[in-house]
Amino acid sequence: MRVLVLGGDGYLGWPTAMHLSARGHEVMAVDNYLRRNLARETDCEILFETPNLHQRARLWHQHAGREIAVRLGDLAEWPFIASVFEEFRPEAIVHYAEQPSAPYSMLDRSAAELTLKNNLGVTFNVIQAMSELAADAHLVKLGTMGEYGTPNIDIEEGWLTVEHKGRSQKFLYPRAAGSLYHTTKVLDTDLLWFYVRVWGLRVTDLMQGPVYGLETEENAGIEALYPCFAYDELFGTVLNRFIVQAVAGYPLTVYGKGGQTRGYLNLKDTLQCIRLSIDSPAAPGELRIFNQFVETFSVNDLAEKVRASGARLGLDVRIGRLANPRKEMEEHYYNPAHTGLLELGLEPHPLTDEVLDGMVALVQRYSNRIVPDRIFRGVAWRK
Amino acid sequence: MRVLVLGGDGYLGWPTAMHLSARGHEVMAVDNYLRRNLARETDCEILFETPNLHQRARLWHQHAGREIAVRLGDLAEWPFIASVFEEFRPEAIVHYAEQPSAPYSMLDRSAAELTLKNNLGVTFNVIQAMSELAADAHLVKLGTMGEYGTPNIDIEEGWLTVEHKGRSQKFLYPRAAGSLYHTTKVLDTDLLWFYVRVWGLRVTDLMQGPVYGLETEENAGIEALYPCFAYDELFGTVLNRFIVQAVAGYPLTVYGKGGQTRGYLNLKDTLQCIRLSIDSPAAPGELRIFNQFVETFSVNDLAEKVRASGARLGLDVRIGRLANPRKEMEEHYYNPAHTGLLELGLEPHPLTDEVLDGMVALVQRYSNRIVPDRIFRGVAWRK
Repeated sequence: MRVLVLGGDGYLGWPTAMHLSARGHEVMAVDNYLRRNLARETDCEILFETPNLHQRARLWHQHAGREIAVRLGDLAEWPFIASVFEEFRPEAIVHYAEQPSAPYSMLDRSAAELTLKNNLGVTFNVIQAMSELAADAHLVKLGTMGEYGTPNIDIEEGWLTVEHKGRSQKFLYPRAAGSLYHTTKVLDTDLLWFYVRVWGLRVTDLMQGPVYGLETEENAGIEALYPCFAYDELFGTVLNRFIVQAVAGYPLTVYGKGGQTRGYLNLKDTLQCIRLSIDSPAAPGELRIFNQFVETFSVNDLAEKVRASGARLGLDVRIGRLANPRKEMEEHYYNPAHTGLLELGLEPHPLTDEVLDGMVALVQRYSNRIVPDRIFRGVAWRK
Repeated sequence: MRVLVLGGDGYLGWPTAMHLSARGHEVMAVDNYLRRNLARETDCEILFETPNLHQRARLWHQHAGREIAVRLGDLAEWPFIASVFEEFRPEAIVHYAEQPSAPYSMLDRSAAELTLKNNLGVTFNVIQAMSELAADAHLVKLGTMGEYGTPNIDIEEGWLTVEHKGRSQKFLYPRAAGSLYHTTKVLDTDLLWFYVRVWGLRVTDLMQGPVYGLETEENAGIEALYPCFAYDELFGTVLNRFIVQAVAGYPLTVYGKGGQTRGYLNLKDTLQCIRLSIDSPAAPGELRIFNQFVETFSVNDLAEKVRASGARLGLDVRIGRLANPRKEMEEHYYNPAHTGLLELGLEPHPLTDEVLDGMVALVQRYSNRIVPDRIFRGVAWRK
């Protein structure tokens, strides 16, 4: 199948491009290096050197004997996205092309404006490009579990049937996200749902939890093919950050009470979820929503796990307690459904001691590259 | 109170500016003539000549002895909106500054893009300007009853408490709008709700139904102070359009079965609702939502009322039946709550025969200005 990977340079985009290429799909990866540029501007550069996308594609070809086409440009600009769709005629589109950081989106007005304009603008253009140039294509859109926030009732899988005064209605599950970044994903979902209803688009919207990990089947042991592994406050996901903090001897940055609970998954499981979604596409006029994670942990759970892993590997890991710079509930009910992807065939990789120790050991080999100043700066949600 | 009226040149904006000025508020009206320009580009010019905003303010001063300040510019541009807030230091902001037409938003890709970028861009800038330059100000934002769509359960006033598996949660009432224009209002609500939660803004979001009417206390009998009265398919609201169609001898453009039911209100009641909202502001950190309409009618009800009014005034009004160019339910349950504004003191002006006959008689005096080609073109929701 011809699969377009939008945001193909990112933490998830590049592993996805390789994974789908390895399975015989014809892949084109598109990016504008937004994340690289923002990381440089905010002094949040990553742990490993990652070659540029052209070089990565060449290395992948040398390693696997398969081609990944690369196009660089801004998908929020219509002439560029139209040229990509006209040239490639995608049958499936994986859309990661968004500013991916919650703290960055709360940094200041111009960071917020960039996040809103980029994320909504790309999603809008993808919808229009599908409608005009790839009407039968299937969009696999990355949303976030963060769209739901932390309601006091079970989080169902995308939809909620409400019984009210003796009548019944199935609604898009009500959303209340915790950052502007997460809110742009809510807006994406609203926009997609509207155009699915009126134009009959085929869309799978994946409500993904925080991802951790580095190695995949495709890159195992090949540093130049690793994804961008951010450990800073802005672009790093929590478990990846804690592991680097443990290795650097920096007290783990637990915010507030640490009872904040989310659904997590290994990068390897992200790749499975994307592949399974592509292999069983949504029907025309269907907005299919899956909750994409495999286990729930509180921040305290993760900190304890990293502390224990450090102890096994000879590290004395301390757990810090910081005033919470975010506005969020620090203790709350959390019971989200996540059966859809399991039914499609997902085989989860749980966060075992072995997996965690492997990540810590890998980061230990690169400990001299850690810049401690990048670990915490306390971007505040409140004005 | 210093009240900023954003979109102060529009069908509702200009009457609002006069109404608040007449009641002693210090008013600044801001606009970029977007609606005037789009109307000219799409050959949808209105029934009456409306002087430009500077001239209107001069006429108002001659008539009422009160000043309305006028600023022209694009509120989606930060330097302009910042200069307006810095100069005027508003205590209340009435935000109408959006592309207001559902059919226009479905016309083509560039009309859709303009709608999304303008509407979200202005709302985002208003939020940022409040936060940076008017932290205690109260925003009165015009949403639409169309945000809710036509669910099979009662539409409550902004919020819905859901009982689910023995637990309970109050959510923003789930929304599913029927056009991109209406969807941008859903996105506005999501964005406002996020920033109300994190920054403690004071916001009243008015879910308004279609407005009809022309004369208000402030402009009665003074044509040069009338609001822009659109009768075309793109910018006209349904009852206003039907009245012009009746006068022009054009069969009333009922789409499909005509059972589409909505909540309507007289322009005079819009003004009351805005004033009442300003006089009793939302608290800091409160997103207060009112459903702003006074009566529900189906399209068939409105067509019959206009036919009957025409008969009283010697017009032979025919009712047309057109294939529905929109994608919407043509028969549906519709029971929306609307008690909040009544509790604040709203005294409704219902759509009596007298009111309707007055509108028809007024339009009859201008019948020679009607351009029948503008009445219908059939902008299709489906691709």
